[in-house]
This record gives sequence, C-alpha cells and structure tokens, in this order.
Amino acid sequence: MSDVELVCSLAKQNSSYIAELNAEDRNKILKIISSALKEKADEILCANKADLAANADKPAHMLDRLALNEKRIDGIAAGLDDLCSLATPVGEVIEEWSVKSGLNIKKVRVPLGVIAIIYEARPNVTVDVIGLVVKSGNAVVLRGSKDAINSNKALVGVIKGALKKNGYNPEFIQLITDTTRESSEELMTCRKYVDVLIPRGSAGLIRTVVEKASVPVIETGTGNCHAYVEKTADLQMAKNIVLNGKLSRPSVCNALENLIVDRAIAKDFLPDMISELEKNGVEVVGCDETVAICPSVKKASDEDFYTEFLGLKISVKIVENCEEAIAHINKYSSSHSETIITRDEKAAKRFSELIDSAAVYVNASTRFTDGFEFGFGAEMGISTQKIHARGPMGLKELTSIKYVINGNGQVR
Amino acid sequence: MSDVELVCSLAKQNSSYIAELNAEDRNKILKIISSALKEKADEILCANKADLAANADKPAHMLDRLALNEKRIDGIAAGLDDLCSLATPVGEVIEEWSVKSGLNIKKVRVPLGVIAIIYEARPNVTVDVIGLVVKSGNAVVLRGSKDAINSNKALVGVIKGALKKNGYNPEFIQLITDTTRESSEELMTCRKYVDVLIPRGSAGLIRTVVEKASVPVIETGTGNCHAYVEKTADLQMAKNIVLNGKLSRPSVCNALENLIVDRAIAKDFLPDMISELEKNGVEVVGCDETVAICPSVKKASDEDFYTEFLGLKISVKIVENCEEAIAHINKYSSSHSETIITRDEKAAKRFSELIDSAAVYVNASTRFTDGFEFGFGAEMGISTQKIHARGPMGLKELTSIKYVINGNGQVR
Repeated sequence: MSDVELVCSLAKQNSSYIAELNAEDRNKILKIISSALKEKADEILCANKADLAANADKPAHMLDRLALNEKRIDGIAAGLDDLCSLATPVGEVIEEWSVKSGLNIKKVRVPLGVIAIIYEARPNVTVDVIGLVVKSGNAVVLRGSKDAINSNKALVGVIKGALKKNGYNPEFIQLITDTTRESSEELMTCRKYVDVLIPRGSAGLIRTVVEKASVPVIETGTGNCHAYVEKTADLQMAKNIVLNGKLSRPSVCNALENLIVDRAIAKDFLPDMISELEKNGVEVVGCDETVAICPSVKKASDEDFYTEFLGLKISVKIVENCEEAIAHINKYSSSHSETIITRDEKAAKRFSELIDSAAVYVNASTRFTDGFEFGFGAEMGISTQKIHARGPMGLKELTSIKYVINGNGQVR
Repeated sequence: MSDVELVCSLAKQNSSYIAELNAEDRNKILKIISSALKEKADEILCANKADLAANADKPAHMLDRLALNEKRIDGIAAGLDDLCSLATPVGEVIEEWSVKSGLNIKKVRVPLGVIAIIYEARPNVTVDVIGLVVKSGNAVVLRGSKDAINSNKALVGVIKGALKKNGYNPEFIQLITDTTRESSEELMTCRKYVDVLIPRGSAGLIRTVVEKASVPVIETGTGNCHAYVEKTADLQMAKNIVLNGKLSRPSVCNALENLIVDRAIAKDFLPDMISELEKNGVEVVGCDETVAICPSVKKASDEDFYTEFLGLKISVKIVENCEEAIAHINKYSSSHSETIITRDEKAAKRFSELIDSAAVYVNASTRFTDGFEFGFGAEMGISTQKIHARGPMGLKELTSIKYVINGNGQVR
C-alpha cells in the first residue's frame, strides 16, 4: 500500500467515528481546536516562517496568502467558534412517507464519508476545512501545497495532538505530507477510499483534477462574472454595482470581469463609467463599438471575453438587447455569477430564467455569491458544476442521503 | 468538429428550448410520442427484427432484452402516458429567504442541461429516457449499443418525426449513430456540451466510464445486496425475504446476493433455508462454518463475497453479532441495498445508522429499491454513488438548482 493509499484508508477507517459523534461532541472538538491553535500559536508561526523563508522569491500576493500571524490565527480560531452555533446537518430526516406496500421510507441526511481536498498555499484552508468536516461528520484527506507544508504539518499536528489529549480519536483527519505531483494524482484515483474530491485553487489545478480524477469531483471557483446594464437601468445604480464588482476585491471568484451594455444607452453610460474605472487603475478592453465610443479602450480579443482576469482589468461588450446579452453571457461565462441592472421586470425575469449560472442577480453586485453572505454560516467553496452542489457550498452540501426503510416482512 | 461533438453541440444548443417549455407542452409531447410509437409499431418492429437477426448468435437473455413486440411497444407507450400525471420539477422554488443586506434569495430547481446516456442493447431505455428528459426539461444525447442500433434509429426517427409534424422542435433529442468505442470515449470527455453522463449497463461499462470520463458522471446499478438474519429474527419472515430477494428476479440490481446469519441461530435457520434455495436451483457458496453445517454448500472465495452474481447463486456468511455483520457488509457491498431481519429495535437502529448503503431495510426485501416502488413515478436508474443522487433517481434527481437573487442596488 502506498503512503497516499494508506492515509486514505485510515481516513475511511475512521469515518464512521466522526459520522457517529453527537452534536455536543462536534462542538467540543471545535472548541478544543480553537483553543489549541491560540495556545500553540508560537509553534505554528515558527513553522510558517520556514515556509515563508523557503518561498521568499515568490510574488507578494502569494506570500500574503501563505503568511500567518497572531491576528490571523485568532481569526481562524474565531471561525471555528462561529461554526458551533450552526446546526449539524447529520441525521436530519429530510422526508418521510409510506408507500402502498406498507413500507415506511425515511430520507436521511448522512455525511459523504471521506472528503479529499487539494489546495494551494493557504494554511487557513487547512483549519477551515477541518472545522467544516467536524461539523458535517466527514473524515478528511488534506493535500496542501508544497509551499505550505511546514505550516500544514504544524497545524494538523497541533489539532490532532489536542484532540488526542482530550480523549477524542483524531484519525479522521489525515494530511498527505508527500507533496509531489504523483501523490496528488494518486489521490485523484483513490476510488476505494475517497468519496469526493474538492479542488480549491487556480483554474489550472481544477482543470487537472477534472481531467485526471476517477473519484467523484466537485469543481469550484472559476468566476468569469458579468454585469449587464439593460437600457432601462438606473445608471447610477449600475455604476455603483460595476465599481463594487470590479474594485472591492478583484482577486476573488465573485469579482466582476465583464460589462455588457445595451446599445441604446452605451453613449450615455460608457464614457463616465469607463473613465471612473480607469481612474481606479482598471485596464479596460472592449468590442469595436466600445472602442469607437471611448478611444482609451483597447480592442478585446475573443480570448479576453473567456478570461477570468482576477485583477484590475475588465472587458466591455455592447449588445442590441437582452437576448443578445444572454447569448453572449451563456457562451463566455464560467457559470458562476451574473447580474442585470434594469427597471424592466420582464427583462429581469427573462435574464433570471435564461442565464445558466449558479447565481443570477437582479440589481445587486455579483460579490454577494458567498456562503456567509447567503446566510449559510460556513463555506467550502463555490461550485460551478451542476451536479450535487451549485453555488456556495455550506454544511448541507457536504452531506449525502440514504433511505432507511422499515417494514414488517414485505416482499415483492 | 467530430460527429459526436456536433451531436452534443446540437443538444446543448436546443437545451434551452426544452428547459423553457411549460408543463402543458411537456405532457403534449409525451402524448404525441406515445401515439406515434403505437402508430408506427410496424416500422419499429421491422428495424428491431434486423437487430435480432444480426445478433442471432447471442445468449437468450440478451436477445430477450433486445426484442420488441406490439405488447412491449404498448407497455413503453403506457409508461409515457403515466409520466403525464407527475408534476414537472422544473421551476420549483425550493427555498426562499432574505438576508441582512436586504437581498431576496430564491433557490430554484432547473434542468441539468444536457444529459448523456451510454447504455446497452435495450431499446426500451431509448424511449424511457426520452420521456424522463422531456418531463425534467433536459436535452439528451443517446449512445446506445451497436446491437440495437437499427431499433434505436427507428425509435428516435419516429419520435422526432412526430414532434416536428406537431410543431415542436425535436432537436433536444440527439442519437449518436456511430457505435464504435471511439465515439463512446469521445462522449465521456465532451465537457463543453455534456452536463452529466449516466452509464446504464454492466459493471464493466460503468467502470470504464468512471475511469475515462472527464464529464461529471452518475454511477448506477451495481448491486451486491445483503440480507442479515439477526439472532432475534422471525425465521419464517427471514426465509420469505431471502427467497424473494434471490428468486423473484435474479438478474436485477436489487436482487439478493449474500446471506449473513448470526452464529446463535445458524444451525436452526440455515439447513432449511439452504435446502429451500437449492430446491429452487440456487447454487449456494459459504464460509467454512456454513459448509460444516450444510455439506452441500461449496466453500466461498473472498471474490465470491465481492461478486454481484446476477443469477441463481448466493453466498452465505456466519457472524458473531450485528457489529461483525455491519463490518462485513460495509467491506464487501457495492452500497446499493441491504436488509436486516430482526425483532431487536436496537439492532435495527444500529444497522440502519451504520450500514453505508443507498437503501437500508428493516424486515423487508431489498427488491423494493426502485423508483416506482418508492413512489417517484419514474426512474432513471439507481445511483450507487454519494454525490448528487443516491438510490433510485426520479425526475428531481435529473435537475440542478440555481440561486436567483433580487436586490435594489446592493453592493458589498
């Protein structure tokens, strides 16, 4: 048995332990972890320093994601405390009915079993995911990045040590310490033990997982989001929503990447809108008509319309009407989040019905696509696929169901 | 663009047409198809004869599945008529709530989009699946077996012709007529157009799809089902349930393949049970203890316990208690359906909670795992995976969700 297979088999073996714990024990575990992280902050920060030193040549934004400090550890611990107030989804009877044969059928919510996560150099993900699996009754196999391996080892070590010390079996948490590409590919095909694999990271990572995995996958994250300013829009509202979508946090998946504008209002709306974006350092590319209206705009390539810029860049496209806007978005979007700004109820209805994306907004910023903003109290990521989970994944999305059927000797 | 890609792109292109139809039109389409099949029965039977002739050397049970006749066509048509009485799941508002930002969030049920099916030589599946996608608002790509290609072409031809004649766009239905292995493998990786792929057929087919597909897959079918006779069981009830599970239809996935018996009652229960099975032509294999009690039983290999026999064969295993039974089942089962026969409520509860399968029965036959028996009114197959759908898949399991969010200018 290889190391990866061994680690996955240990997770599977201990998955019924975590599945069976009661709600009170789940919260006790979260509190134990939260306290331990704060107590052992020095040990964790020391390991994190080693990771930062080993990656000193990496770009600043990558180092920022990798870095921990006391304040960040307090924030991570507070996240676990917040989870305590949520209801555990495990054991919920979703539906119950009887059928003509006299059988009583219950549809019961159960954990998925073993959730594997492949993620990049963000040590906070290690703890966030452990919190989510504790609450949802799942075992977990963590496969973090080589760049964060010391931090991840320290975090998992502190967490498992604290659980053991307090009389809980910590083996439902497993970390793959081999950070070669081979270990990652082995995890993707470990069908015997892994119930679902969730990649969290760049579009490249997610593509690789989708292509190579034979275990079930939930795709997350890529957000090529659109705002469509329909001809009846409140133009001031449209401007606010576009600026918020592009500027409030350009590196996240629910940030805005594309602006679509009805031809009828393009000359009124675009010059001011684009000048405001440019004042804020945004590079604007657009279709020929946009360039004709605003000569500062560079011509957008077809590739630009497909691209999640994740930075201070936006593409602009002028369309004739709602139908053309919908067709354009359904062609180029990654099906994450789109918004229409309009005062026309029919256009709003049409857009909501025909846009094929996880979250469709009317007169609001795409930046709200988020488990916390949706009121789920937790988030494992944003699913951009259609099966199992779509949009923000909270605790319920980390569960499956089973049917429990009671009879008194029925045969068929 | 290859033929497969073209066919899939046509399905995608026409997926919004079928998604948008109202409930009345969906039922009209079902009625049109039902009538057309009966009217054009001769044409269909003629094509079916060609398939039967081309496969004359195949085993009888395969020919039986391939064969159509007027009665069977009437049955298939009646299935479509039955679908009319079910509610369309499309557009259902599953949940609706408001969040502190003032946004109103609706979780709405939507079609999956393009469902692809790879299936074996059973022409009835062609029509059943078309009925299900019409009702659930999906486009479909059908990839049937070479052995049924004439029947499938005739059925799809009749159906699409009737839709066109009645003013409906039939292009949401697409049949891949290239039945080479290459076409099947191309379909498995057609991520641009296929939202989900459902393999229906042998364990080998399903394994190939799971290993090669990069599109999302819902695994169906393999049923290595167990009955566990606990020491407090009503032994007459146990006997009925075992005979029903093994004999009523041995070739289907919810048939019984394994019998687990508590040591305390093995000597009372097994001789009569096994002799009854043998009288009915069942080959019985078992553990050493079983062989010692019933010398007619052959020794079971470890492989036997993993095997879905799909015929008149059963394996028997004697265990000490409920814990050992649960561990055995969770190790060897394909996680489809298991039953416990018991009068001990605690054992029933423990079995229901700890068995990790789609359907867990107490005092009833595993043969009830079926969309119709569960009252779903329809069935696409039985999912044995944990994500998206588990157990019998009805119309709801052929849908996804989207969030529709209404605001009045909210930014974050």
